[in-house]
Amino acid sequence: MPVVRVSPRKGKPVGDRRAILEGIYVAMRQTFDVPEYDQFMTISEHEPENFSVDPISGIARTDAVVLIQITANTTRSVAQKQALYRRTADRLAEDPGLMPHDVFINLVEVAKENWSFGEDVAQYA
Amino acid sequence: MPVVRVSPRKGKPVGDRRAILEGIYVAMRQTFDVPEYDQFMTISEHEPENFSVDPISGIARTDAVVLIQITANTTRSVAQKQALYRRTADRLAEDPGLMPHDVFINLVEVAKENWSFGEDVAQYA
Amino acid sequence: MPVVRVSPRKGKPVGDRRAILEGIYVAMRQTFDVPEYDQFMTISEHEPENFSVDPISGIARTDAVVLIQITANTTRSVAQKQALYRRTADRLAEDPGLMPHDVFINLVEVAKENWSFGEDVAQYA
Repeated sequence: MPVVRVSPRKGKPVGDRRAILEGIYVAMRQTFDVPEYDQFMTISEHEPENFSVDPISGIARTDAVVLIQITANTTRSVAQKQALYRRTADRLAEDPGLMPHDVFINLVEVAKENWSFGEDVAQYA
Repeated sequence: MPVVRVSPRKGKPVGDRRAILEGIYVAMRQTFDVPEYDQFMTISEHEPENFSVDPISGIARTDAVVLIQITANTTRSVAQKQALYRRTADRLAEDPGLMPHDVFINLVEVAKENWSFGEDVAQYA
Repeated sequence: MPVVRVSPRKGKPVGDRRAILEGIYVAMRQTFDVPEYDQFMTISEHEPENFSVDPISGIARTDAVVLIQITANTTRSVAQKQALYRRTADRLAEDPGLMPHDVFINLVEVAKENWSFGEDVAQYA
């Protein structure tokens, strides 16, 4: 049940945005033991003045850069996190063709009782 | 001072959105020891292609689903969290009439010195 | 590499929004040991019905209030956090002229391996 928030600059075609969500989902499936269909993902597009990303500090980022923030349980190892980063960058390089530098990922970790899916309460506690 | 971020698909009437914020606030008041008037809540509406939520894995979600992310202090027990989940689902079932499956809640917890209200600094440290 | 999310009500002029991002960046540079050019910041503007902020509990907030959520490593002391709060409020008072009460800050802290900049993986692990 990771929650995924993707923040690009406004202007990416719909197909690119769909590919980004699909790529992150596949990467999470392959590296983070995420169940099939587990998608709680949103994209928020930003006007240029509402989106300020370091353009130059040793890395040549472009306007295509996406900020990805994933909230997940505190159960993954450092190796799993590294695999997620690598796999996500690889997938988004394939489709929609993002450069690795343009894939920024930040993980936020929470306790297992911090989720509710409505049907029941604290399903993972 | 929980911060509440609500993410629905675009298209909910204003009255429904107001009811969702009010319902979450009341549920937090009743279960999370939140002071009166303590509201730091936003809604971000998403176009269909910017909103991807698991439609089927054992739970029949609808397009009315809302993702709720609440950032709060690390002071609540598991029982309090479960009470929050239950109370929020109950309130949003009453108004605006969301099905329990369509209320997804995720808590992010932070240290007590991680808040500033401008007037002074780290009010809870 | 803090990630900064700023949520104001809709209607702030572009110049005010730029000043807010710049002010937060400068405050982080001065108090949080943030490298030059380290900017991963977004603004999400909200319609009035999508933005509910406590107007009155002992503090006279205005419609100019901004919610600032900063995700950063768990490496700063309480004193550093207090300095960040104070410096941010000071900067935003200078430009764009926000009252201290209208600067709400919340920090979310994560492990050092929770970041990827695409080029490599888990740069800080």
